[in-house]
Amino acid sequence: MTKKYVYLFADGKAEGSGTMKDLLGGKGAGLAEMTNAGLPVPQGFTITTEACTAYYASGEKFPEGMWEEALAALSTIETSTGKKFGGTANPLLVSVRSGAKFSMPGMMDTVLNLGLNDETRKSLAQLTGNERFSYDAYRRFIQLFGKIVLGIDAEKFEHKFDEYKKKLGVKLDTEVGAESLATLIDDYKAIVKAETGEDFPTDPLKQLELSIRAVFASWNGRRARDYRRVHKLDDSLGTAVNVSDDGLRQYGRGFRHRRGIHTRCGDRRESALRRIPAECAGEDGSPESALPRRSRSSKEEMPAIYDEFVQVADRLERHYKDVQDLEFTIERGKLYMLQTRNAKRTGASAVRVAVEMVEEGVIDKATAVQRVEPAQLDQLLHPMIDPKADVNVLAVGLPASPGAASGAAVFDPDTAEELGKKGEKVILVRTETSPEDFHGMVEAQAILTSRGGMTSHAAVVARGMGKCCVAGCGDVVVDYANQQFKVGETVVRKGDWITLDGSTGRVIIGKVPLIEPEISGHFRTLMTWVDEFRKLGVRANADTPHDATVARGFGAEGIGLCRTEHMFFEGDRIDSVRRMILSSTEYKSLEKQLEVARAEAEKASNDRKAASGIRVQDLEAKIKRPSELYHGALASLLELQREDFVGIFRAMNGFPVTIRTLDPPLHEFVPHDDKTLEDLAAKIDMPVKEAKARVEQLHEFNPMLGHRGCRLGIVYPEITEMQARAIFEAAVKVKREGIVVKPEIMIPLVGNVNELKAQADVVRRVAGEVFDREKETVDYLLGTMIELPRAALTANRIAEVAEFFSFGTNDLTQTAMGLSRDDSGRFLPFYVENKIFPDDPFQTLDQEGVGQLLDIGVQKCRSVRADLKIGICGEIRGDPESVIFCHKVGLNYVSCSPYRVPIALLAAAQAALADKTGASVGTTA
Amino acid sequence: MTKKYVYLFADGKAEGSGTMKDLLGGKGAGLAEMTNAGLPVPQGFTITTEACTAYYASGEKFPEGMWEEALAALSTIETSTGKKFGGTANPLLVSVRSGAKFSMPGMMDTVLNLGLNDETRKSLAQLTGNERFSYDAYRRFIQLFGKIVLGIDAEKFEHKFDEYKKKLGVKLDTEVGAESLATLIDDYKAIVKAETGEDFPTDPLKQLELSIRAVFASWNGRRARDYRRVHKLDDSLGTAVNVSDDGLRQYGRGFRHRRGIHTRCGDRRESALRRIPAECAGEDGSPESALPRRSRSSKEEMPAIYDEFVQVADRLERHYKDVQDLEFTIERGKLYMLQTRNAKRTGASAVRVAVEMVEEGVIDKATAVQRVEPAQLDQLLHPMIDPKADVNVLAVGLPASPGAASGAAVFDPDTAEELGKKGEKVILVRTETSPEDFHGMVEAQAILTSRGGMTSHAAVVARGMGKCCVAGCGDVVVDYANQQFKVGETVVRKGDWITLDGSTGRVIIGKVPLIEPEISGHFRTLMTWVDEFRKLGVRANADTPHDATVARGFGAEGIGLCRTEHMFFEGDRIDSVRRMILSSTEYKSLEKQLEVARAEAEKASNDRKAASGIRVQDLEAKIKRPSELYHGALASLLELQREDFVGIFRAMNGFPVTIRTLDPPLHEFVPHDDKTLEDLAAKIDMPVKEAKARVEQLHEFNPMLGHRGCRLGIVYPEITEMQARAIFEAAVKVKREGIVVKPEIMIPLVGNVNELKAQADVVRRVAGEVFDREKETVDYLLGTMIELPRAALTANRIAEVAEFFSFGTNDLTQTAMGLSRDDSGRFLPFYVENKIFPDDPFQTLDQEGVGQLLDIGVQKCRSVRADLKIGICGEIRGDPESVIFCHKVGLNYVSCSPYRVPIALLAAAQAALADKTGASVGTTA
Repeated sequence: MTKKYVYLFADGKAEGSGTMKDLLGGKGAGLAEMTNAGLPVPQGFTITTEACTAYYASGEKFPEGMWEEALAALSTIETSTGKKFGGTANPLLVSVRSGAKFSMPGMMDTVLNLGLNDETRKSLAQLTGNERFSYDAYRRFIQLFGKIVLGIDAEKFEHKFDEYKKKLGVKLDTEVGAESLATLIDDYKAIVKAETGEDFPTDPLKQLELSIRAVFASWNGRRARDYRRVHKLDDSLGTAVNVSDDGLRQYGRGFRHRRGIHTRCGDRRESALRRIPAECAGEDGSPESALPRRSRSSKEEMPAIYDEFVQVADRLERHYKDVQDLEFTIERGKLYMLQTRNAKRTGASAVRVAVEMVEEGVIDKATAVQRVEPAQLDQLLHPMIDPKADVNVLAVGLPASPGAASGAAVFDPDTAEELGKKGEKVILVRTETSPEDFHGMVEAQAILTSRGGMTSHAAVVARGMGKCCVAGCGDVVVDYANQQFKVGETVVRKGDWITLDGSTGRVIIGKVPLIEPEISGHFRTLMTWVDEFRKLGVRANADTPHDATVARGFGAEGIGLCRTEHMFFEGDRIDSVRRMILSSTEYKSLEKQLEVARAEAEKASNDRKAASGIRVQDLEAKIKRPSELYHGALASLLELQREDFVGIFRAMNGFPVTIRTLDPPLHEFVPHDDKTLEDLAAKIDMPVKEAKARVEQLHEFNPMLGHRGCRLGIVYPEITEMQARAIFEAAVKVKREGIVVKPEIMIPLVGNVNELKAQADVVRRVAGEVFDREKETVDYLLGTMIELPRAALTANRIAEVAEFFSFGTNDLTQTAMGLSRDDSGRFLPFYVENKIFPDDPFQTLDQEGVGQLLDIGVQKCRSVRADLKIGICGEIRGDPESVIFCHKVGLNYVSCSPYRVPIALLAAAQAALADKTGASVGTTA
Repeated sequence: MTKKYVYLFADGKAEGSGTMKDLLGGKGAGLAEMTNAGLPVPQGFTITTEACTAYYASGEKFPEGMWEEALAALSTIETSTGKKFGGTANPLLVSVRSGAKFSMPGMMDTVLNLGLNDETRKSLAQLTGNERFSYDAYRRFIQLFGKIVLGIDAEKFEHKFDEYKKKLGVKLDTEVGAESLATLIDDYKAIVKAETGEDFPTDPLKQLELSIRAVFASWNGRRARDYRRVHKLDDSLGTAVNVSDDGLRQYGRGFRHRRGIHTRCGDRRESALRRIPAECAGEDGSPESALPRRSRSSKEEMPAIYDEFVQVADRLERHYKDVQDLEFTIERGKLYMLQTRNAKRTGASAVRVAVEMVEEGVIDKATAVQRVEPAQLDQLLHPMIDPKADVNVLAVGLPASPGAASGAAVFDPDTAEELGKKGEKVILVRTETSPEDFHGMVEAQAILTSRGGMTSHAAVVARGMGKCCVAGCGDVVVDYANQQFKVGETVVRKGDWITLDGSTGRVIIGKVPLIEPEISGHFRTLMTWVDEFRKLGVRANADTPHDATVARGFGAEGIGLCRTEHMFFEGDRIDSVRRMILSSTEYKSLEKQLEVARAEAEKASNDRKAASGIRVQDLEAKIKRPSELYHGALASLLELQREDFVGIFRAMNGFPVTIRTLDPPLHEFVPHDDKTLEDLAAKIDMPVKEAKARVEQLHEFNPMLGHRGCRLGIVYPEITEMQARAIFEAAVKVKREGIVVKPEIMIPLVGNVNELKAQADVVRRVAGEVFDREKETVDYLLGTMIELPRAALTANRIAEVAEFFSFGTNDLTQTAMGLSRDDSGRFLPFYVENKIFPDDPFQTLDQEGVGQLLDIGVQKCRSVRADLKIGICGEIRGDPESVIFCHKVGLNYVSCSPYRVPIALLAAAQAALADKTGASVGTTA
């Protein structure tokens, strides 16, 4: 027995049902469900997705029995409708539509009015009493079939039609009469013959066969593949094919036989149905987007049909418990439902609808929380480009910081500051940014860089400010000398307007309309429900009192990552930092030389004794200056950091604050251009040549894997000491103000428990000193980042010393995969496009690889200390899969940038709900 | 009951035994063993290592009961010897010697002749009949005690002695008479008083107590700690203290009462005993190194003692089945054995002795194989600095390539080549080397760089040539302009001679005597035994036909890693490589632009159509030139690589050759100085500005984690295709010559099975094409490096596609630990010195961390394909622990540089033997 490949829906009952999406696709399942529910649905049949995959598996042959089943189904429909496919009395016209499991609007092909040919055209003319309409329908059918099924450039048909209009001296299609259309049809057939070498198929069954093949083929068309890649859909699912009675059109002239409508019109905050069938069309553009003007008052024109439609729509919405995207047709005064599916919508709309439906009792809170895609919240928190706008995309870089902004391109921070302060909108364009550019970044609307990745200076600073940034856009060639940048042949000069979309990485020419974010009451309501369900804590990454305040406002339950080095960039602090660094290299080098000299002096024979002694004295004298500079700079940084911590502790009133000790390699702080270096050398009274030599000494081949993280604090314990002192002194001060302070000191880049021990010794000693002196103690925790594979693999050892863990997924991903985030631009897009990687692992946690390390780390840790608090502070971007994974492996909290806190909160709630119900998360489909 | 802290050896029996090394130390156990064996041993007692650790644990207090036990033991000895400690009739003089579990020659302190004071000095004079001897002994005792126990600068005593000699107008110590020595002793006592504020302790028991404390303290002295660090000994073991009857001296005048001798004198290839007690003294310098001239004919002088000594020595050698380092004394015509321990020796000596002892039937082959430290073989394969030479170490860099060489410093490759070709010995000094320096490196004796790590260009190229190299010596500041380098204040100018020790990283001023390597018959014999035991295969890393031949000569069973990119550096090939790279970036960029332009043209509306079409045509025209350049360069590389492979396949006749496809980031091949770049641009007809832009485009922040490995071959499949074609064409050619060819193609840096799939598709397609065309097939394997944590974690997935695995421990260590080998110089030495890391993980596999990944990788792989061949091709340096680990986790082979093959072979045999016997590996102690 062969497999069943065709499912019928006719005579008020369907062989399939609404649960059979896998087999019948979303559309087919919907039609079956509506049929069984007794709703008015045109009759037809669905060819299964299995037929599609079998078709591909067998080298593009219909699977055995499929065609015969289809013919049998067609015959049933002929009987039931009393029409005949290819018949001249009452011809059956059918549509052939794709319909995959997941909605892929506009991505696959549809053919309408199959069955038309020279004979049935005549019957159509008789039935409608409209000769011109019949010719026009036939003409359109040849054109659509030619394009979709036969792959002929649509322009060829349009060009021919234009010739006719020119010849007739008319402008509108509708001005071309029946006679002209009749000869146009001949010309169209000639085009088909010329392009394909064969006659246009007038046999309806041939039309049907070819159309089914075309729909199958469209599954692997470029658009469809791209769509699936972006939406992470499986290529192997295949599409179903829906063949159904296409009916005849009431609105004959316009041939607008199908209407799309949403049961709710989220953007306008009122029930769409009240205005049915009016202007509130589907947003995705797949149903034709507006009804003829005169149908706007359809409630008055066709009250019976209007009432029926409202009932049907209400029934479907309650049935599916979600906003429905409906397609319907009205044939000779009768309503037919063609499709129903859960509607796609904007973030604001999704939130509003979810809350409204709870208020109306349609769904419960848990469903509402699961209904909104976390990523959609991004739209609510940042300006976005109006999706209706026509944009000219010049290049695509990394979506480094979300939001959108337009402004005039400028190429240096001083100009950005100058114009920005005057209220002009500018976008700062740089190859890459450094701390010197900060003042310009503050005043710019957005930042564009041609180099650097998601964790480059530009990206990190922009995210911290909630400012749009496109980074590492390699196609942009910046030319400072001429104050312009080029992308291929296109030149953008200083002052030319551009628009950046930091959520997608697009660089757009000119000014584009933006939609401003709007935090609605519905949003606030939804977030209170979110808190009822989620178990995973959410903290924010925040480095300044300002960021901390923003984070609290968004609902963060503490700071999961305070990067102390970010404080180093503010204002003229950088000078102290640089003084510390440049003198430290000299100081440490002299210290080392002195140690060697002393050892040599000790061992020296008599005749070398004197010389050795002089060398030691020389070095002791020399070391003095750099030592003073170094410790002086440390002292001034102590003051500054203490004040920052005071501000942060106050803002976080009672919530924990995880402070990471110095992490980046020192050379990130020093200037690399001659001018700044010369100024600096003058300031710190160091010969320029020497300063250059020190900067040169700091050079690293692979700074990511170099002298950074705890390795700094171990070689320079004075730095950790200074930071610990700043933290504890600030904590004592704020505690005395009556505020609860919970500092958590986090040591970065630990790979071996001994590293943590060494740093813990310093921190605990300083804590003791401060508490003794101040006669006041503050409870604090001392923990570590788990951001190296070795740390995860030896988590049991590290847990002996650490009081908390925080997984750093950025570095863990970089090291586990051997993949520099800043350099991956040359191949990672290629990898994702070609499915070598399923996703960008910096956007979505690589569960198969990096996830194993998380799992190993948690297990090994819990084996030693079951109650140890474990968080994660890489930017998971509110990606629901990543959050559910964090929830599953048993983390206590996630931490992300302040503007992503609501996204993470929602994802956490969905993770908890999915855990409870086993449901899938984060998709409304 | 308190613990027993003191073990007696007296009256021909000992409380301890030879097996109690942990408790009694090596020396104490040896003394006990010799006593029990009835050998002539002075009587005494051993204070245990537990007493030492208890001493430290309790804040430097003697543990309860220890002192009392010591006094009781002392009393027993007094009774047994008839002497009395501090007695005037027959005074007992004792020595106090350290003695840890592992021999640490010269690293800890010893005090002799305790018991001497003003009274016992007189008795000594009477007993020896030599007044001057008694004063001199007392004078020496005060000086030694003053220095060792009281910490007084020895120079103060010597200075005083010099004053006397000046005053007396004499030159030799022996010319100072008894009367002068008597007043000198008073002056010495005054020095002690002045320096310590207390009188010199004349109470023998006080002397004993302080001396025991001093020995305990010397365990934590700097020398001892350094020694343990270098030799990887545990700091917590503690030292035992041996107190024994010091006797009186036959050779009174010279006070040379102790003699060290080896039972065999390996370096001179004849039995040392025949010349006993003659010039063949201990190599380590701890026993006084030469006997008085007149004792050279001691066999004739003291035939009875000579015979007794030979018997004792033979007996000890047979007992311990190893060469013994003996210390003895002859007191009033009687022989006393003071110490016996396994002798330390040079590599050549170790090999010779091991083979000889098998031939003599003392040990079996397995023992002989276990007796030689693998690392010692290095001395046999490279020149080394004469250990007796006095060297002036200027700086210490990374031991990048072993051996030693002297030469005049030169600072550019052209001079190196010019002088080198004239037969002058030069050492090339560079900040770092690049392919342009190659011709100079070839002619230089050795290479010194101030930057770069163990895998820098200089290091890798030098190791490949078996040439000495010290890399990344940060203290060396190279000044090309003045043709000199500085270390601190020391300037080394062009032409100044320096010596490099590539085995330790030392940079030495001047010319130093070297010992040339000598491959002896004994070595060959040992290596045949090695092959009888080992199970682990050993292959070589070799990149050229020459290297392959060398590797075979050293016993390599194939090539485990042939780095195709190394072929790129030879001769003027680099030009083709650069042409390929610079044109490729343009070609790929245009290809991408063209793709976008075509897609846009397709979608373009009518009015944009024409413009789009022109853009496409423009691009098509533009792409032509770089495409031709690119594919032209690929074609010429194809020719060159094919010939290399032909040579390698011939050299490896029947042994497998693992060829890795292109691995390093492309920018490693392009010039970074303006001059070379300009020349190159002219050669390939590219505007200089454009060439610079291309080079700039190749810049990466972290090239280690960037666009390299299989990521190159995936984005540029043409490169993999070219390499695969070269391999298969060469294989077919050599097979037709009647030679068995076994190519194994290895894809580097795979982290995801899809990467391997993509590259495997290319390789297999090319293989098919070549075999079809040539009508000849060659069996080959296709496998991958496992060098990323993610690869190890997903080895089960990767094993579905790979036909073999090879662990790359260099990159695996770098990524697992987040540690760049090239940059770790700033903190890794500090880490090892401060025991944060037990070892340099690039020298000794980090079993706790990286080892877990090996283990996981092997397990996951075997779970899918139990028989998959797994090797390792990081440079394990013949480190026995690493090799035993490889053996244990079940690898099939290790691969290392040709000059390390014998080391790895030996280590592999030891691993197999250890596996069988459970014995420890690689140490003779």
